[in-house]
Amino acid sequence: MTSIYSPGSPILLPNGARIFNRLVDFLRQQYVRYGFQEVITPTIYKKALWAQSGHLENYAEDMYTVTSTSPARADTVGAGEEAEYGLKPMNCPGHCLIFGSQTRSYRDLPLRYADFSPLHRNEIQGALSGLTRVRRFHQDDGHIFCRPSQIREEIAKTLDFVRLTYKVLGLGPYRLVLSTRPDHYIGSPEDWAQAEEALKTALTESGHEYTINEGDGAFYGPKIDIILKDSDGKEHQTATVQLDFQLPKRFDLSYDAPAPEYEKRGETTTDPQLLGEYGPVQPVLIHRAVLGSAERLMALLIEHYNGKWPFWLNPRQAIVITVNGTEPVVGWARQAYNLLLGVSSDSASAAVTEPTAPTGLAVDFDDSDRSVGLRVREAVAKGYGVIVVVGPQDAENKTVGVNAMALAKPGDSEAELKRLKRMDMTPEAAR
Amino acid sequence: MTSIYSPGSPILLPNGARIFNRLVDFLRQQYVRYGFQEVITPTIYKKALWAQSGHLENYAEDMYTVTSTSPARADTVGAGEEAEYGLKPMNCPGHCLIFGSQTRSYRDLPLRYADFSPLHRNEIQGALSGLTRVRRFHQDDGHIFCRPSQIREEIAKTLDFVRLTYKVLGLGPYRLVLSTRPDHYIGSPEDWAQAEEALKTALTESGHEYTINEGDGAFYGPKIDIILKDSDGKEHQTATVQLDFQLPKRFDLSYDAPAPEYEKRGETTTDPQLLGEYGPVQPVLIHRAVLGSAERLMALLIEHYNGKWPFWLNPRQAIVITVNGTEPVVGWARQAYNLLLGVSSDSASAAVTEPTAPTGLAVDFDDSDRSVGLRVREAVAKGYGVIVVVGPQDAENKTVGVNAMALAKPGDSEAELKRLKRMDMTPEAAR
Ligand SMILES: [Zn+2]
Ligand SMILES: [Zn+2]
Repeated sequence: MTSIYSPGSPILLPNGARIFNRLVDFLRQQYVRYGFQEVITPTIYKKALWAQSGHLENYAEDMYTVTSTSPARADTVGAGEEAEYGLKPMNCPGHCLIFGSQTRSYRDLPLRYADFSPLHRNEIQGALSGLTRVRRFHQDDGHIFCRPSQIREEIAKTLDFVRLTYKVLGLGPYRLVLSTRPDHYIGSPEDWAQAEEALKTALTESGHEYTINEGDGAFYGPKIDIILKDSDGKEHQTATVQLDFQLPKRFDLSYDAPAPEYEKRGETTTDPQLLGEYGPVQPVLIHRAVLGSAERLMALLIEHYNGKWPFWLNPRQAIVITVNGTEPVVGWARQAYNLLLGVSSDSASAAVTEPTAPTGLAVDFDDSDRSVGLRVREAVAKGYGVIVVVGPQDAENKTVGVNAMALAKPGDSEAELKRLKRMDMTPEAAR
Repeated sequence: MTSIYSPGSPILLPNGARIFNRLVDFLRQQYVRYGFQEVITPTIYKKALWAQSGHLENYAEDMYTVTSTSPARADTVGAGEEAEYGLKPMNCPGHCLIFGSQTRSYRDLPLRYADFSPLHRNEIQGALSGLTRVRRFHQDDGHIFCRPSQIREEIAKTLDFVRLTYKVLGLGPYRLVLSTRPDHYIGSPEDWAQAEEALKTALTESGHEYTINEGDGAFYGPKIDIILKDSDGKEHQTATVQLDFQLPKRFDLSYDAPAPEYEKRGETTTDPQLLGEYGPVQPVLIHRAVLGSAERLMALLIEHYNGKWPFWLNPRQAIVITVNGTEPVVGWARQAYNLLLGVSSDSASAAVTEPTAPTGLAVDFDDSDRSVGLRVREAVAKGYGVIVVVGPQDAENKTVGVNAMALAKPGDSEAELKRLKRMDMTPEAAR
């Protein structure tokens, strides 16, 4: 839903939050393989940081300023300090602060940070629309700090991560576009040429076809955009991989490496004397997002699945429906419901002694007094994966009627419920 | 870590983020039993919302104002609309918008919303300190909208949730304090008397002892604070339960119920004519947090565990250490590492075809060329739960040396690794 009090900031209700959290969980699982470490970073930073990053000069139009509502509480302004903050539109400067907070060695690289922070970009009010044109969104943001010699492998891995994710979500086809230096840019033309060359080589080596979009890069570096085609043939820019030599320079980032002159060019030497001499080298920064804006991707998925969610993403995985309102039926239905949730039957206000380890299934309960047929039809229309109907016979025999829409095999016994209960929430289990 | 660019906004590095995410996961699991639904809500709201909620009048000192950095991008101001936003210090007004967005019936109640959004409160700069006195924090925030007749049970359940959580975390003892009407308040003295009476009754019925703190309530209602005693005997306010008749009034919230005059007083009637007449009734709002500020609770846990984290919360669950740098040893160690992580051995840049379903274990890898003894001692000092050492003999026989500090039974075979790999991340598995 949206509210007039927060134009452009969508409110995710329980079903939306479920889908969002499942997408985040899926990515976190893949982060283990792709070597990303999650960090949690501030929402507001002093304007001095945005000056250092170049955002104030190049991105201020899209930014929000944050000040103390009560002037008496404003930060005392010391030498070089400011009272004003910027609300973050990107996570990169924060991740640069983390990289720069310790001495780094070539052995520590690549360092890959992931972040699911909410971001704010001040789109024009008239352009706002649902989940697609927003001001507040969550990016599955990641920043890779690597050695020049590691660029190609990191880009290849990122493109692989994108391919895997879109395959699991059933999205595609998509095409790759390389965007080059825009009119408005920071850094030297030489840096840009080197960065564009590195991306071209990585793309060619990865075997992906691509087209070039001249002058459409970010102000800090060239990028590869993933353009997804939806079922109507409409195109959407989702994932992105951006190469950046500027931000590491602006934040004066470095790591120690042997033979630094070779290291800088992504080369090695066998000369033992050169290898014995260590020096600081500037890391390369790769910005990347696999989903892009999670809110926007959810809008695409809503359209794409059209109510038929894969089981693992379905916010309506199961519903328990009672045939009548008698005590035995409602009581047994409530037990079936708890079994599906994986919580012990809660005898009302009895104090709980053990923590809960639920199944993770999203289960609803309907004991309203409307007709059973109507409620089952409604549940089908709403896209429930499993519809469990409990009648007087079931209450007596301790069975249930299971109507599994999204599962391979329907069943009607408690064993089936147990099987459902054991079902995994991972994409694997869904196929 | 903290940065001069974001005073009071702690940066959670990978280990901190791991602990934070495990705490959130634990709460999400308990939410299934306690009937909370997670929602994801905006960070900034128009000032008009904060005027309606009473925050602008009563809480402005602690708030931040958000404006468009570029005046040209400021929202066009229509009738009753403002260009300025407030950065949210609390989630309650957002949750009131959600409640008010649909027609609600007495059958829908209680509705319980949970939210892990970052919140900002403008503490005086000089008072800031690490994770304990901050400006940006995450509350395990929850709001219960219930019928007057449900207050006592909801408060009892919340106190039960607190008891369970603190038992699992090994924190305590704690005491309960009832804080009453402050000098600066909104609403009528009659509302306050009713709310304070309801809390006293709930406390008495729950069997918990409590003391009274006169005049220390929130500006919108009385509250129960949980005061935790740490191992040094120092006291910390953590969890809180607050009763609020004001915000539902200010947001004009209501639900439909039979015999509304009785319903309002939390009473029922058997008169069929009265029961046949439906009317709007104002819900009661209960604010509650179990951890309170997650950042602050983490600071308490860091001190409390003093490096000896329970296995499920330990950001350093396992480390694989190589005895030497030879190819067979490093190769087999790498395989053991992947086995512990639950990812298939990644042959460098080979394209991945299946999504990963990792164990969830936090595993590190150390093949540095310092002495093995030194590295094992370091790992012990750092509090690793499991230390896996791989030598030439292991590489040949496909075994490992497992030194399990935090586990019941050490082992030295691949079977043991598989057992470790199967280990659950839940608090149950840790005991
Ligand atoms: Zn970035
Ligand atoms: Zn609240």
